[in-house]
Amino acid sequence: MAEPYRRTWMLPQSFALDSGRSIERPVTAFETWGEPRGDNAILLTTGLSPSAHAARHGPEDDPGWWEDMVGPGKPLDTERWFVVCCNVLGGCHGSTGPSSPDPKTGQPYALDFPIVTLRDMMRLQHELLAHLKVERLHAVIGSSMGGMLALEYAALFPEAVDRLIAISASGMTHPFAIALRHVQRRAVMLDPAWRGGRYYEIGQPAAGLSLAREIGTITYRSDIEWTNRFGRAWQSGDLFDFSGRFEIESYLQHQGEKYPQSYDANSYLYLSRAMDLHDLGRGRGGLIEGVRRIRSRALLIGVTTDVLIPTFEIDELAEAFVQSGNPAELHVLDIETGHDSFLIHPDAFGPPIAEFLGS
Amino acid sequence: MAEPYRRTWMLPQSFALDSGRSIERPVTAFETWGEPRGDNAILLTTGLSPSAHAARHGPEDDPGWWEDMVGPGKPLDTERWFVVCCNVLGGCHGSTGPSSPDPKTGQPYALDFPIVTLRDMMRLQHELLAHLKVERLHAVIGSSMGGMLALEYAALFPEAVDRLIAISASGMTHPFAIALRHVQRRAVMLDPAWRGGRYYEIGQPAAGLSLAREIGTITYRSDIEWTNRFGRAWQSGDLFDFSGRFEIESYLQHQGEKYPQSYDANSYLYLSRAMDLHDLGRGRGGLIEGVRRIRSRALLIGVTTDVLIPTFEIDELAEAFVQSGNPAELHVLDIETGHDSFLIHPDAFGPPIAEFLGS
Repeated sequence: MAEPYRRTWMLPQSFALDSGRSIERPVTAFETWGEPRGDNAILLTTGLSPSAHAARHGPEDDPGWWEDMVGPGKPLDTERWFVVCCNVLGGCHGSTGPSSPDPKTGQPYALDFPIVTLRDMMRLQHELLAHLKVERLHAVIGSSMGGMLALEYAALFPEAVDRLIAISASGMTHPFAIALRHVQRRAVMLDPAWRGGRYYEIGQPAAGLSLAREIGTITYRSDIEWTNRFGRAWQSGDLFDFSGRFEIESYLQHQGEKYPQSYDANSYLYLSRAMDLHDLGRGRGGLIEGVRRIRSRALLIGVTTDVLIPTFEIDELAEAFVQSGNPAELHVLDIETGHDSFLIHPDAFGPPIAEFLGS
Repeated sequence: MAEPYRRTWMLPQSFALDSGRSIERPVTAFETWGEPRGDNAILLTTGLSPSAHAARHGPEDDPGWWEDMVGPGKPLDTERWFVVCCNVLGGCHGSTGPSSPDPKTGQPYALDFPIVTLRDMMRLQHELLAHLKVERLHAVIGSSMGGMLALEYAALFPEAVDRLIAISASGMTHPFAIALRHVQRRAVMLDPAWRGGRYYEIGQPAAGLSLAREIGTITYRSDIEWTNRFGRAWQSGDLFDFSGRFEIESYLQHQGEKYPQSYDANSYLYLSRAMDLHDLGRGRGGLIEGVRRIRSRALLIGVTTDVLIPTFEIDELAEAFVQSGNPAELHVLDIETGHDSFLIHPDAFGPPIAEFLGS
C-alpha cells in the first residue's frame, strides 16, 4: 500500500538500547494530522501490525487502521489536536527493523538486529517529538501493544504528558499471553523457509508467518463472538476429508494468508518478544512503583471477552494506580468481540475517549 | 510404556463408518478393572491423548491417567464396578488407526485411513461390550473428548446405559475450539517431516507435533492458574536474546517435546478432526432432538476457567436436557486449572461422581 503521507526522520546519532547494545541512526516513519499549536499534540501508539497510517489525510487517501477514531470531528479530532503516529522501532513499515540494512554489512540485519523493548521504542519516539518541537503531549493513547507503549511513555517521561489512555493493555505481560506469543514465534521458526531469519533473498517464511497470524487471530477475538458469527457453518469440501472446511477455518486461513504480504516475519518475532518483556515494574521495584512514576491523568479501558488481556489484568493495573495515589478512570466494556474490539466498535470506545481528551 | 494389562479384540468383520467407508476387522485395545456381575459395568471413555490404561491393576503396575479416580475405594470403585476403558478407533495405543497397516498395502494407512467420527468410535466400543457380554451399562463416563464420547454413546444406545457423566464437554463443538484445533493440525502439517502423512519410515514430524501439543497445552489450562503458578519468572538465558526463556515457555516446551515420544502425529490429526465434527444434533434435527434420544440420568460437570469448553456451552447442553424433558444434574466447578481440571482435582470431581454413580 502506498503511503504518500508517510514521513521519515533519522536520529542523527547512535541510539542506546535497554539491552546495552545500540542502533546506528535509526529511522522512524511517522504521519501527522492537524496543526501543532504548542499544547495540542496527541501521540497515538500502535499495536503489533499497524503502520503509522492511522487515518486518511484527505478524500483521495486510503483509509487507515483507526479511521473511525482519527479525523475531523472524530474522537481524536484533528481539527483540534495535532496527532502523531509512528511505526515502532523494530517494525517493517518504514522504521528501522530487522529487515533494514545493517550498516556493518549492507545486508538486512535479520537476527543480528538487537532485541528492542517497548521502552526503547518510546525513547526513540520521544526524540522524534523533540525534533517536531513537541515538548509536552496533551495525551498519549494506544491499544493492545499501543496501550503498553502509552503506559511506558507516561512512566518514562512523566513531565511530558498530561493524559494517558491505555486500551486492552496490562501493566505487565502475564504468562498466558507469553505462552500464546511463544507458539506464534515457534510457528514462524518451524517454517524451513525462515532459515534462521536469513530469508530476505528468497522471500518470506509465508506458511509459518501465516500460521502465527492464525493463532494470533484466535487471541484477538472471542468464543462467544465466533459462536454467534460462524457457529458450525460449513464452508466447502467433504465433511469426511481433511480438505473440508468449517467457515471459521476458512476465515482463519484468509487472515493468515494475507498477512505475509504486508508484514515481515522477523519484525513479528521482535515485536512479539518486546511485548513479552513488557513490565512497568522492571527495574523500578515492581508494578506499583512503576505506576507511581506516572503523573498523567489516566483512562484505562478493558473488554470483558478479551482472552489476551483478561479483565483481572486491567483490574490489577487499575489497583496499582490506586495504590500509587493516582486513581485512573476505568471502563470495562461488556462487548463480545474480544481484544480487537477497539478496531471494531468506535461507538463504544469513541465517547469515553473523546470526553477524556476534552476534559 | 509397557502396558501388560492391555487386551485387544478384533471385530471379526468389516466395520461401516459414518463417512460411508469402512475398515476391515478393526482392533480395539482395552483394559478392565473389577469383576463383571451383569449390572455393574462402567464404560470409561478417553480424551485425545490417553491410552486405555486409566489406572494401575496392582501395586507393581504403572499408574494410569486417572489413577486417583479409578481403583478400590475410589470414585470409580473397582471393588463395586466393572470398569472398561478402550483406546479409541483412530488412536495409536493399540487400537486400529492411521499408523496401523492398511490390509490393501501392508503399509501404514497414513492419510488413507478414513475420517472417523465419535459415533464410529462408540459403535465399535459397543461391539466390544457385546463381546464382553455387557448388555447394559450402569454408567458411561468421560472427560473432554471422553465427555463427547459418553454423550454420543448415550444418544446412540439409549436403552443400553443407565447413567451418563459428561465432564468438560459440550453438546456440539463450537467455532473457537475448532479454530484452536485447526491451528494445531496446521502446525503438524507445516513440519516438512510430516510428508503428507507418509513419515512412518523416517520418524515422526516431531517439531510440528510438539508445537501442536504446546498450543493444546495452552487450551487445557487457564490464564489465572499460570499467573499464580509462573507469573513472570525467568527460566534461563539472556533477557535480550531469543534463546532466553520465561518459565512458562520452558514448561510449554517440555510438554511439547515429550509428546511425540508417545503419540502418533496422524492419530492426532484424525482425533482432532473427529472432535470438530462432534454434534449431538447432526442428522437428528438439532441439539435438542439429539439430546432427546438420551434416556440416561445425566450428570454434567464444567469448570469456570475452561477456555476450550466455556461454561456457556455447558449451560447450552444443560438447557437442551431441560428442553428434551430429561433435566441433567449440573455442576459448574469454580476451579482455576481450566479444561484439564479433571486430571488435577480428584477432590473436586470425585465426590459428585461417586455420589451419582451410587445413587
